[in-house]
This record gives sequence, C-alpha cells and structure tokens, in this order.
Amino acid sequence: MNFPGVEAINEASKRISPFIHRTPALTSKSIDEIHKARLYFKCENFQKVGAFKYRGATNAIHQLSLSQLQNGVATHSSGNHAQALALAAKIKKVKSFIVMPSNAPKSKRDAVIGYGANVIDCDPTLEAREATLDQVIKEKKAHFIHPYNDYRIIEGQATAAKELIEDVPDLDYLIAPVGGGGLLSGSALSVKYFSANTKTIGAEPSGADDAFRSFSTGEIIPSVNPDTIADGLLTSLGSKTFPIIKEYVEQILTVDDSKIIDAMKLIWQRMKIIVEPSAAVPLAVVMEYQHIFEGKKIGIILTGGNVDFNKLPF
Amino acid sequence: MNFPGVEAINEASKRISPFIHRTPALTSKSIDEIHKARLYFKCENFQKVGAFKYRGATNAIHQLSLSQLQNGVATHSSGNHAQALALAAKIKKVKSFIVMPSNAPKSKRDAVIGYGANVIDCDPTLEAREATLDQVIKEKKAHFIHPYNDYRIIEGQATAAKELIEDVPDLDYLIAPVGGGGLLSGSALSVKYFSANTKTIGAEPSGADDAFRSFSTGEIIPSVNPDTIADGLLTSLGSKTFPIIKEYVEQILTVDDSKIIDAMKLIWQRMKIIVEPSAAVPLAVVMEYQHIFEGKKIGIILTGGNVDFNKLPF
Repeated sequence: MNFPGVEAINEASKRISPFIHRTPALTSKSIDEIHKARLYFKCENFQKVGAFKYRGATNAIHQLSLSQLQNGVATHSSGNHAQALALAAKIKKVKSFIVMPSNAPKSKRDAVIGYGANVIDCDPTLEAREATLDQVIKEKKAHFIHPYNDYRIIEGQATAAKELIEDVPDLDYLIAPVGGGGLLSGSALSVKYFSANTKTIGAEPSGADDAFRSFSTGEIIPSVNPDTIADGLLTSLGSKTFPIIKEYVEQILTVDDSKIIDAMKLIWQRMKIIVEPSAAVPLAVVMEYQHIFEGKKIGIILTGGNVDFNKLPF
Repeated sequence: MNFPGVEAINEASKRISPFIHRTPALTSKSIDEIHKARLYFKCENFQKVGAFKYRGATNAIHQLSLSQLQNGVATHSSGNHAQALALAAKIKKVKSFIVMPSNAPKSKRDAVIGYGANVIDCDPTLEAREATLDQVIKEKKAHFIHPYNDYRIIEGQATAAKELIEDVPDLDYLIAPVGGGGLLSGSALSVKYFSANTKTIGAEPSGADDAFRSFSTGEIIPSVNPDTIADGLLTSLGSKTFPIIKEYVEQILTVDDSKIIDAMKLIWQRMKIIVEPSAAVPLAVVMEYQHIFEGKKIGIILTGGNVDFNKLPF
C-alpha cells in the first residue's frame, strides 16, 4: 500500500497551520514524580472544537476542489468529528450535513448546530447511520469525509505528533489512544518520519480492545458491543488505518476503565486542565505498565476536552 | 501610610521568580465573542499549589532571617494559603505549623500534610483559629505569616498583575477578586506602577460583600456570616490591604452566586481549564456589568484551580 509520505504530512501541516491552534506540550512535576517518568502532554483539548479532530477535518476540506465544495460536506458522527467538520466547513464557507444518532448528547448536537451545520437525526445503530448518510449524500450531492478511514484525515491527525516531536525531541515513546485509528496511524507515520528512535504505542480501553486483538492476530477484528467510559474510542479500525498501525506501531496496550478514571482525575487535579476520558487512556497505560515506562521520556497526545459535566465519573 | 513601593514589587518579583511558575495569559475567542470584549486570563490555577497564594508565601519566607527561620513559620488557613505556606516552607527547608479548622475539606488537609506541614486542628470559628495559632506561636516560637494583611504577602501577590501587564500592555481594566484584599491591593499597586492608564476593579460575591460596603463607606466593615460558593473570598479586608484598595482601586463590583457559577462553567467548557469558584468572580462581573466592559481590553486574574470534584455546582 502507498501510505502517506513525509511530504504529505509536511504539506498537511502547512495547509492547516493558519486555521488551527499550535497547542502547547505541558508537563507536570507531580505526575512525573508519581510515575518516575518524564511526560509531555500535547494539549489537543485546547485545539479548536476541543479536540485533535479539527486537524483532520480541516486538512480534508481544504483539499477539495471548487466543484466538490459546491454541495458541501457530509459525515456521520456523534462525537468530536461532527463538531470538527461542522466548524471546518463554516470556516471554509461551505455547507455541512452531519448525521447524528438520536442518543447523541444534547450538548454535542447543540454545538454542531451552533457551528451552522445541518443535523440529520437517525436511529442509534451503525446501519441506520450509514443508510441515512448514503441518502443524504445522494440527495445533497455532498462530499463524504470519513472520521478516520481517509488519508487526508490521517495526514491531518499526524500533525499533532509532528508538532510534539518538534517541541520535545528524543522521546523514547509516543502514546496515542486508538479508536478508529486515525490519530494512532498518523502519529506512527510522524514518528517514523521525524523521530525514528521513538516507539509509537497505542493505548486502548479493555472494554473496546478491537485494535489490540486486530494487532495480535494481524486481521481486522471489529468491535462488538464495546463498553467503556472512553466514548471516543468505541469505533473499529479501518482498512486504511490498520495497515499503517500494523507496520509502524510497536505495541497496543489495554487498560480497564477504573485506571482510565484514575488517570483522568489525576490530570484534572494536578494539571488543572479538562480532558475527556478517551484522552486519559495513554496516562492510564503509563500507570498500568510501569515496568515499560519507568525512567523514560514519553510524549502523550491528550486528544480532547469535551466532557459532559453532568456525567463525571468522580 | 507607607505603601509598598515600585522597588519592593520589583524585588519581590526577582526574589520569587526561581521558585514560581510564570503562568500564561490565555485568551478565548468564544468567550470574547459572547462578551464583546478582549479578555486576557492570567492562569494562576497553573501556579504551584494551584493558586496565586504561593507567590506571597514564597516572598514572605524568603525574607526571613536565619533566626526567624529557625523555628519555622505558622499560619491559620483552611484554604490555599495553607498549602502555599506549607510548600514554600518545604522548599526553604523550614518547619511549618498550619492551624486548620476541623471542617476544612479532607483533600486540602491531606495536601497540606503532603507538603510536610504540621497540621493543628481547631474548632471552625475565627476565635478558635486565632487562639490556637497564638498558642502554637508561643509554644513553637514559629514566625507568623498572615494570609493577606502583611506587606510581604501583598508584594508577592502583586507580581501576578505585574507579569500580566508585561505580557499584555494597554489594558483598559484589570479585575481581581477580593476576599481579604491581598491580591486586589497588590494588583492595584502593580497597575499604578506599571500601567498607569489601566483601572483596577475588585470583583466580589454579593453574599460576602464586605469589601464593597467598606469601599462605599470608607471604613472597614467586617464580613458577617458570609454566604457564597466562592469559598476563597469569605474573609474581611485588613488594616494593611484596605487603605491601598481605598486609594488605588477604581470600583468594587458585586455579583450573585448564580452568575459566578455560570462564569465558572463557561471557563471550564470553553477554555478547558479548571478554575475554582473564586477565580470565576471577575468574569461574572464582566457578564453582569456589560455596559462598563463592552469593547474593552481586560486583564483577569484566575486565582486558582483547587476544586472539590465531589461538590461541583453544575
């Protein structure tokens, strides 16, 4: 397969830089002391729409031709990709059509509408989402932008790790959470191209361990009834993300929800920043597998900070 | 009265700079749009111990003579000053004795003990706190460091506004919350010395409006049964803080708790940072008095981020 090359990631970086925040890499002395490691947190919770997803959505939209842009863009998502695509479309002054399951949190639905998107409701099943999206695309002739299984998305997400590597050289490990694999595959490519001695690790909830099982067996094993508080990581790997992960990711490590909650609380308490459960999975992995990470210099992508304050796990 | 001069604040700044974080001034496009103003948030929630109080405590301790340091330092506090003095003492390698009321949150008590302080419990009344502290000072011969009514503390707290002014020149307003007045008096001095065209505003909860009433009448009117979610602002002005405030603060504005909670939630949601209720009072004032602040360039001191996650108001 022709994976995105170093030039594609460099171009994505240039393309999106006027539109995104270059987020800081924060450290916490007390968290370092607890885990006997040097941790650098890439704060994509401070990214526009509160999540790294804005990078991929922006990179995709800004590559569309005028004729492609004419009828707008479309996707299905209940999460951060929905907001990301809606805002990226607004900035580019094109229409967006977002298919959202009827059980999506009201706050996320409101945010998407707030960015000027057209929200189309559907039943909360993957089948209903795909069928509704197909119909929207057919009717509106909108351009579909998949949340992760798309090289334009992967290249965009890769820019977070690229920036972290620029700010913090000589990392021993870079850890990113894995859901559909857009961020993890992009991060692995950036590590390969810009920091060859760093190892990329995928961090996954035990309750949604399809990437772990796919990685172990070498074949995509879809997620069946995933159950985890990390609601951004419920999706399964895709045909474009998995081959990159298989090739360039060192290992996928899983953790239970209780550790994820501990890690999330630690970040809130010690760093005074808000991260969503999915963003805490890499730190949970550092806590769980101390024998691997002790004494190491580790980059962590804090993926986002969109939390429903009425449903905090602590 | 001989208020602290410009040199005292410059020296405090030099004295404490090796020990404190120079915190960032963050902005939020969406909060600016909502309030039609340009807001710059000085993030003392990222300060050591999670609050600006570490500045004053550090400035005080580092001015003590060897003989003063010998028997350690003491104070009474249920809040951020307790943690600040405990850590500043630990860094300076001196003992600390912190008198805490028996109803202080366990998390704060644990944090103070975690910094190596000796915690002495007392009944939760001001009388009991003062009597217990007197006894501790007599027994241990420790040096008392008042949470706010002390020029060394005021000079230390002044450095937050000084840094904000350096990072963001030409502010129309600088807004700080007011409890005992250490931060507000220090901020007003920094504004006077370093940004003479800026106006300093005190922000106070309606349920603890002793500073507003003192400022209106010209005499210190102590707080009686204050009732507000902003638990860092329950104390009354002091004999050293009030004269500075009377002289150099433009106005004290009060807001209800419901607005404070709205402001706190807005900061959490839009900026993805954790601030305590007291820290949200200045933004609540901007929301409440839009006719004053519309179109203006405003500096806000976010005083701290020590929150009990089990008692969130939203």
